[in-house]
Amino acid sequence: MNQYQGNGQLSPEEQEQLYKIRHSLAHIMAQAVLELYPEAKIAIGPPIDTGFYYDFDLGVDEEGRPRTFSPEDLEKIEKRMRQIISERHPFIYREVTADEAREIFKDQPYKLELIEGLEKGEVDEYGNEVDEKPVISTYRQDTFEDLCRGPHVEHTGQIPPDAFKLMSVAGAYWRGDENNPMLQRIYGTAWRNKKELNDYLKMMEEARKRDHRKLGRELEIYIFDEEVGPGLPLWLPNGAILIEELEKLAKEVEREAGYQRVRSPHVTKEDLFLRSGHLPYYAESMYPPMELEGVRYYVKPMNCPFHHKIFASRPRSYRELPLRLAEYGTCYRYEKSGELFGLMRVRSMQMNDAHIYCAEEQFEEEFMGVIALYRRYFELFGIDRYVMRLSTHHPRGLGKKYVDNERLWLKTEEMVRSAMRNGNDPFVEVPDEAAFYGPKIDVQIWSAIGREFTLATNQVDFAVPPRFDLKFVNREGQEETPLCIHRAPLSTHERLIGFLIEHYAGNFPVWLAPQQVVVIPITDAHNEYAANLARRLFDGGIRAEADLSSERMNAKIRQAQLMKVPYMLVVGDREVSQETVSLRKRDGSRRNDMPVGEFIALVQEKIATRAGDL
Amino acid sequence: MNQYQGNGQLSPEEQEQLYKIRHSLAHIMAQAVLELYPEAKIAIGPPIDTGFYYDFDLGVDEEGRPRTFSPEDLEKIEKRMRQIISERHPFIYREVTADEAREIFKDQPYKLELIEGLEKGEVDEYGNEVDEKPVISTYRQDTFEDLCRGPHVEHTGQIPPDAFKLMSVAGAYWRGDENNPMLQRIYGTAWRNKKELNDYLKMMEEARKRDHRKLGRELEIYIFDEEVGPGLPLWLPNGAILIEELEKLAKEVEREAGYQRVRSPHVTKEDLFLRSGHLPYYAESMYPPMELEGVRYYVKPMNCPFHHKIFASRPRSYRELPLRLAEYGTCYRYEKSGELFGLMRVRSMQMNDAHIYCAEEQFEEEFMGVIALYRRYFELFGIDRYVMRLSTHHPRGLGKKYVDNERLWLKTEEMVRSAMRNGNDPFVEVPDEAAFYGPKIDVQIWSAIGREFTLATNQVDFAVPPRFDLKFVNREGQEETPLCIHRAPLSTHERLIGFLIEHYAGNFPVWLAPQQVVVIPITDAHNEYAANLARRLFDGGIRAEADLSSERMNAKIRQAQLMKVPYMLVVGDREVSQETVSLRKRDGSRRNDMPVGEFIALVQEKIATRAGDL
Repeated sequence: MNQYQGNGQLSPEEQEQLYKIRHSLAHIMAQAVLELYPEAKIAIGPPIDTGFYYDFDLGVDEEGRPRTFSPEDLEKIEKRMRQIISERHPFIYREVTADEAREIFKDQPYKLELIEGLEKGEVDEYGNEVDEKPVISTYRQDTFEDLCRGPHVEHTGQIPPDAFKLMSVAGAYWRGDENNPMLQRIYGTAWRNKKELNDYLKMMEEARKRDHRKLGRELEIYIFDEEVGPGLPLWLPNGAILIEELEKLAKEVEREAGYQRVRSPHVTKEDLFLRSGHLPYYAESMYPPMELEGVRYYVKPMNCPFHHKIFASRPRSYRELPLRLAEYGTCYRYEKSGELFGLMRVRSMQMNDAHIYCAEEQFEEEFMGVIALYRRYFELFGIDRYVMRLSTHHPRGLGKKYVDNERLWLKTEEMVRSAMRNGNDPFVEVPDEAAFYGPKIDVQIWSAIGREFTLATNQVDFAVPPRFDLKFVNREGQEETPLCIHRAPLSTHERLIGFLIEHYAGNFPVWLAPQQVVVIPITDAHNEYAANLARRLFDGGIRAEADLSSERMNAKIRQAQLMKVPYMLVVGDREVSQETVSLRKRDGSRRNDMPVGEFIALVQEKIATRAGDL
Repeated sequence: MNQYQGNGQLSPEEQEQLYKIRHSLAHIMAQAVLELYPEAKIAIGPPIDTGFYYDFDLGVDEEGRPRTFSPEDLEKIEKRMRQIISERHPFIYREVTADEAREIFKDQPYKLELIEGLEKGEVDEYGNEVDEKPVISTYRQDTFEDLCRGPHVEHTGQIPPDAFKLMSVAGAYWRGDENNPMLQRIYGTAWRNKKELNDYLKMMEEARKRDHRKLGRELEIYIFDEEVGPGLPLWLPNGAILIEELEKLAKEVEREAGYQRVRSPHVTKEDLFLRSGHLPYYAESMYPPMELEGVRYYVKPMNCPFHHKIFASRPRSYRELPLRLAEYGTCYRYEKSGELFGLMRVRSMQMNDAHIYCAEEQFEEEFMGVIALYRRYFELFGIDRYVMRLSTHHPRGLGKKYVDNERLWLKTEEMVRSAMRNGNDPFVEVPDEAAFYGPKIDVQIWSAIGREFTLATNQVDFAVPPRFDLKFVNREGQEETPLCIHRAPLSTHERLIGFLIEHYAGNFPVWLAPQQVVVIPITDAHNEYAANLARRLFDGGIRAEADLSSERMNAKIRQAQLMKVPYMLVVGDREVSQETVSLRKRDGSRRNDMPVGEFIALVQEKIATRAGDL
């Protein structure tokens, strides 16, 4: 759920206040639960990105299964919480000894276990491991006291009573260990005001409907298969169409922008990754090696080293720069099974990759050219909320996280900063988050429903060109090392398509829609006209099919709606005799008696211009 | 050199006669050598696909290096061979005991070593291991007797004296072992008549000029890199253009033929290959596994199992058949380093793959549809020599080389045979060369210079659909297992591009040419016009560049010729003032004062129609 933070726009002070509200609501919920279910044992209850939770043990029923909360219970708890809020109880802090704490929580076995850890200095009050021995403290409001370091609001009256909601109950093992008892976790969401809460609830409802894993299956875009393995999607015909359209887009845009395409192998000797420095530093994100004839080979985690090799394959002159090498390259990265998530985190990904080799004086124009590509794509996809973040180095990481050359760091960071300023591109600067080899621009975008998403980055690399001994002969006839810009504005197919499914809720614009037109005959007597019409559309470069199944017309319309086909053409006697179509668009609008030629021209124009409307 | 057999069209009798001629020439050459260089020691001398060779030991020179034959020596030997031929000496066979053989060859240490092996029954007279103890025999003509089982021509006069030529001398270790002495191998080529010899010599000369490894480098199509590894080509921008044009062609043709495109991952759990049966049987052609979280993963050697999974991803109805799933899938196969050869034998290959799932009654139409695709491509590429071979099973291989179901073998073979006959497609039938899972059609083609080349095959698979539990519901509402056709008419990118480079000698037709037009200004004063012109062509979808380097005009023309650019436009004062171009085509023809618009239309038409001419 972390994706749905929606907090990105708050000031640090506002963020802290919201944190306090959520934290305080966790305590208030625990108070309410203990009042309503005095036999309950309380475990832990922290604030989280969208609200808070608290874990409770309600004991077991006659059959030995853990008791849980019903939706009616949640309503009762929520009601009691609002009362407590209205009573404006102060939150009171005190420090205690371990013995005092044991006395306070003598009926709460989970707290007693935590106190033991606190006393030894091993864990904090949530059971998380700590480096330093913490002070033992509590916060109390009204009748409820909890082991806690805060911070909290001053009194419960500071909590907006109409901006929170208890959302769900889920099982959670005590301390995350499946050998421990199963506790009942109540999730709540909390915001600064009623509008923010409602926005969030609406977004969650939309997000549920738009989830790319759900729509990806329903719209037959991709599947996972047990025997193929986790994180390795199989793209069905509809998914392959999305991929091909995106590649076509990228190739057109990149041709226009002066890129040349190359192709590099997916399997490679370890020598290449030793030279690039991926080995040994990046080894844990790579697949393990395969040994052939005593030599270790890897599937590639990145395309860069291959492009460097192509640059270095013959002497280069300044006349050839900037040299822009592009490839939809497939990379393989090891992610733990537990971290895989639909198309968003996978184990193989096809990247809209390119590397631009340029002289220093060409840097600004090239770097801003890439930023312009981003803007162009955002406009095409109707993405109007985005933030650019400039990640820079931190001196303490030099030689460890970062290439050890402070002069070049400062210089390239200033080059990027100055380019962004000259281009009038607002950006925020984030220290200590650069790539190993240079500063980068990260782009965060928000989908139509506000879901946040980080696009692949635009990175400057001053470290790798010398490693690969990249050179060009400059105007003065001397050898010079080029700069390299890594960029991937369309991210990976996997991530971008996952995003676009949710962004459009599956209602892809015509140019992307896997099926653009379905022709629906009113009765079997119109099948031939429907088939010929579909053929004529197909020959016009349109993805059209006639639905000649034995279903009834209404069922066919419903099916086309489910598959979110942009245009439905219903054809009967009238259309056959007039050589026309009755058009129903996906948005519900209709037009009768449309001449076939006019309809074809309409669709072709929407495709050619990659229009966002129907 | 095995590719240049050129014997494909001979009857078995003609082939046997040519074998005897070549074998006899090896003996005659040995006789000539011993007469001219009596100190020489003879080793072995078999016939080969294009002629014959014989290995000699000439001792070492003052510095201890093996003595060898000069080009003048070869002339002398060839002259003496023609004399021997003209003397019509009979070839006389006799069987001897090991002791008799030792007496005959008492001055020939290599023969004595072979006789020892022959006596023990371990090797034949060429030192190759044998299963059965051979008879020891010799053949003698004139003064020369050799350890030999024949067969030979009846007498030397049966050898056409003007249809052979000694080609080259190469070092070869005795018995292929580098610890043994280095011998001098003289290669000769021999044919049935002077015309065949000349054809072969011409083809060899052409082949040398057209070698895809040489042209591939000169035309900047691909490179290999030591750190990337052998058999793993890096495609430079010109190569990437060839690939993209071929994929575009395939996608257009396959769209028209009712294929749907899919995409499958390159890395997969071993479970999938266990199900498909590739493991363990095909394991030695696969890369070794990679282990993640205790599970073994492989890079895929084939795309089939993924397409089967996509077929099986939901219930299928007879209405969906034939279902044709296409993918330019990359496969990885382990070939020993020593067996790699340019683009022809590589370790990763991108295949024009597709699988057609159909009901039995649809088989003939689908199978012949694939054959029609082959013909269409042959016509496009100007390939007019080809042979289709139907490979069938052999009963003795059932349960070993072949799936153990004779009834289905006989049935599907007859289906293919009957389809080919009904389609009037001439074919030859080759028993015992089928795939594991069914009969196949292999297609052999010959390039413009007669180089032979086997295209990927068209295969029927009745065995795998049940392994993957593939089913569809037929018209009667019952479950039925589909047949599967595997096909790859455009082979792999690697193999096809290697072939096309040699077929066209790098003179690609306009639609394939990496650079289609180069604009050459006569002086710097015409640079602006040249650049604008190139831009106008580029905007018209043409791969055009202006050569604005500081070279002189003639050097630019030479460079364009070297790169085999189809069209050169030379522009000077006259062209600038008239807004025209002076066109020089790659074939040397010229046209002056051509209006720019007319030239653009010409090129666009050649591209759109994929014309073979300029």
